Amino acid sequence: MAAKPIIIDCDPGADDAIALFLALAFPEKLDVLGITTVAGNVPLHLTQKNARCLCELAGRADLPVYAGCPRPLLRPLITAEDVHGRTGLDGIHLPEPTMPLQEQHAVDFLIDTVMRSTGNITLATLGPLTNLAVAIVKQPAICQRLQEVVMMGGAATQGNITPSAEFNVYVDPHAAQVVVTAGIPLTIVSLDVTNQAIATPERLSTIEAINSPISAAAIGLLNHYGAYDMQRYGFPGPPLHDPCVIAYLLQPDLFTSRRAYVAIETTSELTMGRTVIDQWHVTNQPANATVIESIEAEGFYQLLTQAIDRFKEHVS
Amino acid sequence: MAAKPIIIDCDPGADDAIALFLALAFPEKLDVLGITTVAGNVPLHLTQKNARCLCELAGRADLPVYAGCPRPLLRPLITAEDVHGRTGLDGIHLPEPTMPLQEQHAVDFLIDTVMRSTGNITLATLGPLTNLAVAIVKQPAICQRLQEVVMMGGAATQGNITPSAEFNVYVDPHAAQVVVTAGIPLTIVSLDVTNQAIATPERLSTIEAINSPISAAAIGLLNHYGAYDMQRYGFPGPPLHDPCVIAYLLQPDLFTSRRAYVAIETTSELTMGRTVIDQWHVTNQPANATVIESIEAEGFYQLLTQAIDRFKEHVS
Amino acid sequence: MAAKPIIIDCDPGADDAIALFLALAFPEKLDVLGITTVAGNVPLHLTQKNARCLCELAGRADLPVYAGCPRPLLRPLITAEDVHGRTGLDGIHLPEPTMPLQEQHAVDFLIDTVMRSTGNITLATLGPLTNLAVAIVKQPAICQRLQEVVMMGGAATQGNITPSAEFNVYVDPHAAQVVVTAGIPLTIVSLDVTNQAIATPERLSTIEAINSPISAAAIGLLNHYGAYDMQRYGFPGPPLHDPCVIAYLLQPDLFTSRRAYVAIETTSELTMGRTVIDQWHVTNQPANATVIESIEAEGFYQLLTQAIDRFKEHVS
Amino acid sequence: MAAKPIIIDCDPGADDAIALFLALAFPEKLDVLGITTVAGNVPLHLTQKNARCLCELAGRADLPVYAGCPRPLLRPLITAEDVHGRTGLDGIHLPEPTMPLQEQHAVDFLIDTVMRSTGNITLATLGPLTNLAVAIVKQPAICQRLQEVVMMGGAATQGNITPSAEFNVYVDPHAAQVVVTAGIPLTIVSLDVTNQAIATPERLSTIEAINSPISAAAIGLLNHYGAYDMQRYGFPGPPLHDPCVIAYLLQPDLFTSRRAYVAIETTSELTMGRTVIDQWHVTNQPANATVIESIEAEGFYQLLTQAIDRFKEHVS
Repeated sequence: MAAKPIIIDCDPGADDAIALFLALAFPEKLDVLGITTVAGNVPLHLTQKNARCLCELAGRADLPVYAGCPRPLLRPLITAEDVHGRTGLDGIHLPEPTMPLQEQHAVDFLIDTVMRSTGNITLATLGPLTNLAVAIVKQPAICQRLQEVVMMGGAATQGNITPSAEFNVYVDPHAAQVVVTAGIPLTIVSLDVTNQAIATPERLSTIEAINSPISAAAIGLLNHYGAYDMQRYGFPGPPLHDPCVIAYLLQPDLFTSRRAYVAIETTSELTMGRTVIDQWHVTNQPANATVIESIEAEGFYQLLTQAIDRFKEHVS
Repeated sequence: MAAKPIIIDCDPGADDAIALFLALAFPEKLDVLGITTVAGNVPLHLTQKNARCLCELAGRADLPVYAGCPRPLLRPLITAEDVHGRTGLDGIHLPEPTMPLQEQHAVDFLIDTVMRSTGNITLATLGPLTNLAVAIVKQPAICQRLQEVVMMGGAATQGNITPSAEFNVYVDPHAAQVVVTAGIPLTIVSLDVTNQAIATPERLSTIEAINSPISAAAIGLLNHYGAYDMQRYGFPGPPLHDPCVIAYLLQPDLFTSRRAYVAIETTSELTMGRTVIDQWHVTNQPANATVIESIEAEGFYQLLTQAIDRFKEHVS
Repeated sequence: MAAKPIIIDCDPGADDAIALFLALAFPEKLDVLGITTVAGNVPLHLTQKNARCLCELAGRADLPVYAGCPRPLLRPLITAEDVHGRTGLDGIHLPEPTMPLQEQHAVDFLIDTVMRSTGNITLATLGPLTNLAVAIVKQPAICQRLQEVVMMGGAATQGNITPSAEFNVYVDPHAAQVVVTAGIPLTIVSLDVTNQAIATPERLSTIEAINSPISAAAIGLLNHYGAYDMQRYGFPGPPLHDPCVIAYLLQPDLFTSRRAYVAIETTSELTMGRTVIDQWHVTNQPANATVIESIEAEGFYQLLTQAIDRFKEHVS
Repeated sequence: MAAKPIIIDCDPGADDAIALFLALAFPEKLDVLGITTVAGNVPLHLTQKNARCLCELAGRADLPVYAGCPRPLLRPLITAEDVHGRTGLDGIHLPEPTMPLQEQHAVDFLIDTVMRSTGNITLATLGPLTNLAVAIVKQPAICQRLQEVVMMGGAATQGNITPSAEFNVYVDPHAAQVVVTAGIPLTIVSLDVTNQAIATPERLSTIEAINSPISAAAIGLLNHYGAYDMQRYGFPGPPLHDPCVIAYLLQPDLFTSRRAYVAIETTSELTMGRTVIDQWHVTNQPANATVIESIEAEGFYQLLTQAIDRFKEHVS
């Protein structure tokens, strides 16, 4: 079977970094056509640079990286330096990237690539949905040409950035609403799921034992990144949000899901960015998304460990 | 220690009925000064009648029962006949009550009783908060005179009537917002807690074995009432929402809690009635409520069983 | 023809004072059953006192005056001391009232009086609509028993307290929404109309020339009260908002009106309290109010001058 | 003085057509760099075609015309066929255009042209603000490079499509909010102003007497277009909304204005798209727009008549 062509839209970000490693470790399964970046965990000038740093670290300086929208549709940008550090990749030190940033805007790369495709492209979104939303408004025909969008975002139960909202959706709730109402085949990997994928000390030890530049980078990032969640929520380690999206593309049988109606709160400041997920079918609204409900966490960490292990061969 | 003087504001309703049995079973602990009724599970003309039927069944025709507000502050009344049946007490047949409905309005009974007290009265609310909210707007001084309000309502994770909102708060979210912003000592027993108190078949069997008029009524009500939750959510039995409030007053050591900031969504139709509970202190808002977090379910059912057993002696 | 029985709900306030003078000047036309007061232009402890001061000044110490709700339904009270002064009646000095404040709550006086009536009572509201809204929620049956509510409030074009909202509606928009959706025969005298009734220097001179205690009080109040509007909007004198309601009851042929759909903004902070008046029938919603569109200002000031002139005889 | 370089963003539409005639009549004053089109009065496939038809009619088949966004940012597209007819240009019959539609997207033409400029470009927007908003989100740097945006939209008093909102802003209120908060030098020509520019029968007669293809087209369009406003609002003729923007660029001394704070209602369905204009400085917010307050209507119609007269020479 041919590798699945995907575009990764991200805002690295520590867990974005792990997601990129995971995606790039299995080229026979995922054909990463390009990486688009957006403002989110840190501002755009950092996310696009970080994406290039990470490609170089992973031995993939050949990958095209694009800068997208530097701001949400309507709301002022908020970032998460308290989680990811000032650089977005605190915990490790990477050299300035030498690979170029593509001139084309991420939105246009997305539109052009999808419109020229046969309809077989999957978009994995790991940050706020601004780039995809702008692409949809500019060229709605992409909605019929995307095979699937798999997004990390939302929370059916409790949020993280507010009691009701998850960070990626909260940063650009209007973009999320554009996406969930666009008629795209959409799969949602919410906080409810990713909080099941905790990087416990044992799991981190296994990765650390690989003892490679990639494993060292992963551990460095996660040690810094984990401090926030462990202190705030009393978790035994950091949840790996974004890598769950890639794991779903690589090994969907690690996940259970159901179809549900999903909508985004865009009007009330109090609950702004709440992802309403009608899991129990109480709204009488037709389903518009596949909502992941559970992840087999052990399998996920085996997959991640295998991925990081693979880089021992690939990276000089 | 003297019995704690309480007023019970309710909208019976099957689980209200169980809550009333529980409250009336321990007169040495709870001194029920009056029962006020409100539109909620069923319209007011039924909730006030049901409250009287239940008092008579429990051998307490002496208790004053008051009718309160027949409608929410702003929104049209919605009711829950799909859960509680057309009468509000489907599953059993009780004779028309002979005890009178008090002439005074529930709101005025509440205001007068609290204002004349020494500040030692606790209000247990088992339905929409309309009566208390109207009392607060009419006479805000009650806020400094109430010892505590313990309310069943809200959901920090998922709702029941909508994906985001719990029924009691959803029916009159504006009233709930009046209450949570009133500066009253407030304890919230949310759906997150009451869903931990499932009346499993085993627990119901223990109650049924008491074999008294009250146990028969409880089982009749819960068999009807349980069908909805078991079908909708796949629960092994119905959660007993309202009795948790009374159990908290009787035996607080069955519960754990924390202080948190709470606010009610009153502006967005999509998330209307969401109870925002800042459990993880991400909003920087000062706490305004004690939020119950867990219930020791076995202990709760022992207490309930003991309560129903007590009626064997009391009731002819 | 018998005098029309009315209750005046007010928050004096300079223009409320003029409205009271106007209402009390024609006992053969208006039978004022009582005066209920609410928090609005100034807090309740001042509006109820001011109402009594004004009754005594007008020689009507026999009138029952009631205190109502000291706060809006949901929002914190805002007042208008910048317009009406610290006392609410700045510009004149009145002795402490000796007539008593009634013990009954304004809400209950309103409910009891309307429920005992034959359905012939008109309520004139000159302030925020909290009292009427609480009465409606407590006892909705009054809606079928009120002959008419004539309210000063709202603005179809521009507001005064915000660009979109008029003061009375803005102070308690939820109460206004309760009222406009209650199914009461409702007539709205909006800012669009009352801004047509400017107390120009010429008109004030005519009143001043009456040279009586009431005319002196009116001039004293309006000289203070006018400063705000003249400076803010460049008006040639203050608009007499509240007296327009009484003038409508005394001489409806001074006004033109149309039926229209009216709704109140209660959800958005930006436009909070906007009175949506569908004057051009673009919403396809059925009309729920009579909206006054114009006032014959000269006739209005003749009526007012006549009213103030009448007190020369009545008042010792 | 050199001609002012402008881009016209429009959704023709009858009054857009008149605006285009006005803009193209004075090439020594306005240098139209391109015409961008958007969904609004009619869908995009018609507005872009209509723009080309009108350029050809005006003898300007050389002008580049671009298609932009076919939908608003978040809300479903609503159109105004009841005003402009099914084609958007009902009342006249124009041949299919032979000039091409540019391949570039309107958003990218706008961004590229502005970014390559010296900062001297003015954008005149005659329709919903979707194109400009998407350009701002995609490339916020244009905000510092645009000399001015002059938009037809909003209403400080009453709206047209709803009691509170004007059509252009209502169709894409989120886009309007992006624009008013972008820090662009912004001038707003609202409905309050354009309703002062009524095409009375006398004014139309003067234009008709020119007796040219352009005058015939203008009269044909306005006779059809006027019917709606005359019937709905009782106007003596249609208000020429969009041409007021062009007149402002040609002859600003026909207008008075003031600086004011402006914000757009994007959260409440009831008042959605309300343009809050703080004309009286009651909000304490800093001014972010120049708001036109009045138009000298006679001078405006003289300018328009002169413009249409000019085409006698220009057009074969």
